[in-house]
Amino acid sequence: MAGAFRHRYTSAMSGGTDRRAAWRVNLGNVIYDADTPAGRAFDLLLIAAIVLSVLAVMLDSVSGFQRRYAAPLRDLEWALTVLFTAEYLLRLVSARHPAHYARSFFGVVDLLSILPAYLALLIPGAQVLLIVRVLRLLRIFRVLKLVRYLSEARVLSRALQASLAKIVVFLAVVLTLVVLIGTLMYVVEGPSNGFTSIPTGIYWAIVTLTTVGYGDIAPRTGWGKALASLAMILGYGIIAVPTGIVTVGLTQAHAERRHEDGTSLGARECSRCGLKAHQSDARYCRRCGEALPKVPPASGTG
Amino acid sequence: MAGAFRHRYTSAMSGGTDRRAAWRVNLGNVIYDADTPAGRAFDLLLIAAIVLSVLAVMLDSVSGFQRRYAAPLRDLEWALTVLFTAEYLLRLVSARHPAHYARSFFGVVDLLSILPAYLALLIPGAQVLLIVRVLRLLRIFRVLKLVRYLSEARVLSRALQASLAKIVVFLAVVLTLVVLIGTLMYVVEGPSNGFTSIPTGIYWAIVTLTTVGYGDIAPRTGWGKALASLAMILGYGIIAVPTGIVTVGLTQAHAERRHEDGTSLGARECSRCGLKAHQSDARYCRRCGEALPKVPPASGTG
Amino acid sequence: MAGAFRHRYTSAMSGGTDRRAAWRVNLGNVIYDADTPAGRAFDLLLIAAIVLSVLAVMLDSVSGFQRRYAAPLRDLEWALTVLFTAEYLLRLVSARHPAHYARSFFGVVDLLSILPAYLALLIPGAQVLLIVRVLRLLRIFRVLKLVRYLSEARVLSRALQASLAKIVVFLAVVLTLVVLIGTLMYVVEGPSNGFTSIPTGIYWAIVTLTTVGYGDIAPRTGWGKALASLAMILGYGIIAVPTGIVTVGLTQAHAERRHEDGTSLGARECSRCGLKAHQSDARYCRRCGEALPKVPPASGTG
Amino acid sequence: MAGAFRHRYTSAMSGGTDRRAAWRVNLGNVIYDADTPAGRAFDLLLIAAIVLSVLAVMLDSVSGFQRRYAAPLRDLEWALTVLFTAEYLLRLVSARHPAHYARSFFGVVDLLSILPAYLALLIPGAQVLLIVRVLRLLRIFRVLKLVRYLSEARVLSRALQASLAKIVVFLAVVLTLVVLIGTLMYVVEGPSNGFTSIPTGIYWAIVTLTTVGYGDIAPRTGWGKALASLAMILGYGIIAVPTGIVTVGLTQAHAERRHEDGTSLGARECSRCGLKAHQSDARYCRRCGEALPKVPPASGTG
Repeated sequence: MAGAFRHRYTSAMSGGTDRRAAWRVNLGNVIYDADTPAGRAFDLLLIAAIVLSVLAVMLDSVSGFQRRYAAPLRDLEWALTVLFTAEYLLRLVSARHPAHYARSFFGVVDLLSILPAYLALLIPGAQVLLIVRVLRLLRIFRVLKLVRYLSEARVLSRALQASLAKIVVFLAVVLTLVVLIGTLMYVVEGPSNGFTSIPTGIYWAIVTLTTVGYGDIAPRTGWGKALASLAMILGYGIIAVPTGIVTVGLTQAHAERRHEDGTSLGARECSRCGLKAHQSDARYCRRCGEALPKVPPASGTG
Repeated sequence: MAGAFRHRYTSAMSGGTDRRAAWRVNLGNVIYDADTPAGRAFDLLLIAAIVLSVLAVMLDSVSGFQRRYAAPLRDLEWALTVLFTAEYLLRLVSARHPAHYARSFFGVVDLLSILPAYLALLIPGAQVLLIVRVLRLLRIFRVLKLVRYLSEARVLSRALQASLAKIVVFLAVVLTLVVLIGTLMYVVEGPSNGFTSIPTGIYWAIVTLTTVGYGDIAPRTGWGKALASLAMILGYGIIAVPTGIVTVGLTQAHAERRHEDGTSLGARECSRCGLKAHQSDARYCRRCGEALPKVPPASGTG
Repeated sequence: MAGAFRHRYTSAMSGGTDRRAAWRVNLGNVIYDADTPAGRAFDLLLIAAIVLSVLAVMLDSVSGFQRRYAAPLRDLEWALTVLFTAEYLLRLVSARHPAHYARSFFGVVDLLSILPAYLALLIPGAQVLLIVRVLRLLRIFRVLKLVRYLSEARVLSRALQASLAKIVVFLAVVLTLVVLIGTLMYVVEGPSNGFTSIPTGIYWAIVTLTTVGYGDIAPRTGWGKALASLAMILGYGIIAVPTGIVTVGLTQAHAERRHEDGTSLGARECSRCGLKAHQSDARYCRRCGEALPKVPPASGTG
Repeated sequence: MAGAFRHRYTSAMSGGTDRRAAWRVNLGNVIYDADTPAGRAFDLLLIAAIVLSVLAVMLDSVSGFQRRYAAPLRDLEWALTVLFTAEYLLRLVSARHPAHYARSFFGVVDLLSILPAYLALLIPGAQVLLIVRVLRLLRIFRVLKLVRYLSEARVLSRALQASLAKIVVFLAVVLTLVVLIGTLMYVVEGPSNGFTSIPTGIYWAIVTLTTVGYGDIAPRTGWGKALASLAMILGYGIIAVPTGIVTVGLTQAHAERRHEDGTSLGARECSRCGLKAHQSDARYCRRCGEALPKVPPASGTG
């Protein structure tokens, strides 16, 4: 996920030659880059503002809190909205391709973060839109570009992508099971026991097979309990499948990363006997004793 | 699962010489095959009809919806039933071995998808049979033959089959535990706390060990809670076992697929006896001792 | 588990020379051995009787059923008790070491299966002991010796034994966490919200960390919910640990079994260059082309 | 965790030359060391006292029990407090660096274990502090130094540390999901269905995604149930990710331990430069090119 984010970000930054004025380039470095002290300070400030803002949206929904602190909450919200508006405009101005930025994932999220406040001012009934501001949380992921976590995020995301086909097959089987079990329970238990319709039965089946088990609907008849027991034991086995899929995917993604880093066995070949798969610190061929070629320069963190 | 389905399908299609008329062969290609544009269009239409039909069955069970839209639902249902009947007859006609098809898994499912509607017309009390139409959902799996998902489904199904013996042992242990714990809780808590019989205790034990935890029955005495705590911690460890089994099975199924594809263990082939799957550092064929060709340039991710 | 059972069984059978009369040896073969037709028939009959007996104990606890079928249930119970008593005496008579058998795990289970019926006859208040008969279920595991499942059971049991030390460390951490979290919740929520004592808090913590979540006790205050949220996310990560432990243990147990079977790479060594790790079907050394020694005779199923 | 504990312990013990009197050295051996009979006896006594003390704190919170056994509980508590105080003073006296010990993790825990009892005596309102005594439980981990469990604890802790970056990424994604889903449910269900505020919605989302599922808050509207179903199936897939992370981490930690033990990759050592950990088929040292000794006869399971 973060990998996809960063891809958009870099492609928005690197395409074409730079025709911006010097101050816009400098501004862009502060805003988009985290390698300079100014850029890092900007990022940390932004994270603080985002967290504060999301906390304000949350607390605003707690009725007791809202009644007592209505005024400070409104003031804080407006201060942050103005701040985020200024940031959005600066991003637009300093981006290499403003239109590109405005249509990118984070460009839309940035706009959605400030628009509701203005709309609620203009249209009286648009108060409910304010909830959209919680999307600001997504902007924190932009800062993940800062750190080594990106590499880990890419391993995770690659593992999930590699397992996608298997996960789709698995989901198709689970959804079919859920519909069949839910329908069966609707027939067995009936509306008088809470299974008022087939969709309700399917909802119960999902709650059960995922082992969430709220208990708002539960079988009451003997046959219903027997069927539910079978479904639970089935779900028990089924929950093991995605775990296995992800584990295998992660193992392979790790192996690929090691391979790319050149740290896996086998990047070099003996010039005399052709043996490969030498250990990373080997200087002589383990089969014929020939000196090995030097290690190629490490090709980045992968 | 999908692997087993396809097996039946292909065995129904390829046995014996083809004695059908040309139009029946062409019709069979459209209906059974997904590689032609007509075949793909037919499959997509069918999926849409199935999904629509299952949605109609679901909504029909929602009392509020059913009362308001009784007429359109009935009309839709009859249109789809006529469509599926026509499809069933066409499949029968165009199959290489009609009797074979009629007795196959999907042949029975196809029949069960249309029969209830006619039975409900003839026999007044057979309304409840209409629920059987939800089985139409299974027919979607026939379309899985379309795509690359089949290969993934086969890996999953092979992993589960290879783990079958271990899963049987595991289930035997779990069922014994569930009976013993359920009986013990029946003795400790007693009928006055909701554990009205041993089967109820076993139902509680299944709900608990699978971590579903509805809460419709829960221990109330101190000893009952202590025993339940032990059972939960036990279940905690137990749930790890099927996951481990499936993960190991999946890892092995993957290794086998790589082996079959000839992409692991060296893509090279012995020039004398044609044996493949040599180890990456092999210089002589392991079967006939012939010198192998040199390692080809790394041919991609495989 | 089954491995441990079988160990006791074989050690009870093979120690010392056989001083029993011929009819006792033959009887022992029928009772303890499953390789002869008579032995297999005896085992199947026994499983049927055990399942019937456990079902009778279960149904006996369902009050509606018990009232209606009191007489047949009692008759069935006595018939089975007489049968099991006869079996116990025959086992005692035909065992190589009767005292050894009587003190073995299954010897005690066999005795516990029949004793309660006689005690309930003698002592009026011993009715509750009848519940002990459900232990008869354990005797089914004796029949696992019949089949190839034993090998799988041994892999599972070896994986769990190898992981034992890690599981103990894990359980120690979990129990400490559970006590600390439970105490904290008792302080935060207090008796008025259902957390009536520290043991109750610990019970809640176990129900939560194992993701069972009955809902009979749930946090009601804001701080309680915040703390519970932290505990749940913690439990989320913690549940991954036993799974990882078991998966790694299973992978190693599999590798060991392959090794024992002689099917793993590397059982043979080239007599010219000393290379090992040949594929199982290799006939020539992959490095120097020398003919390999013949495969050693397969050393059993491990 | 235990690894970190032990690190502190040994660094507190080994730094600098020993300037303590002989009796303090002997005392320190008994208290800090478990290899002598006196040290082992001391440790076992301490574990018994800790378990007894924590049980007393627990039972003290059960109102029925507390009322009946107030006097003996108070006496036991004071006896144990005096014992732990003596132990703390002896540890201070016999430690190589008393100040070092007092500021170490276990030094603080030891102090927190005895302080509340004295504070409750001095300050009337400090009764609630007595709950802090449950922290005594942590002291049991000190005894883990006794046994081979330490090695396993280190493998576990290394696996978790290696996976830390991935776990942080995963938690960031989960927390964002939880906030977005919780807010969405607050909008969809509304306060009249129990979702009284956004924090409540987030609490519900955590309860659901972790599959705990208390059922104290559950969706009641159709759209809410549909959204909850999606969230549950999402959570189903998500719960597989930490498991995969930990499994991969554990596999690597195991491989590293084998590597360090020198039991994998060939137990042989280069006779010129002394390098170990050669690959199993190596004939020349990979560092200096010297011919390696022949493979030793397989030295057991390693």
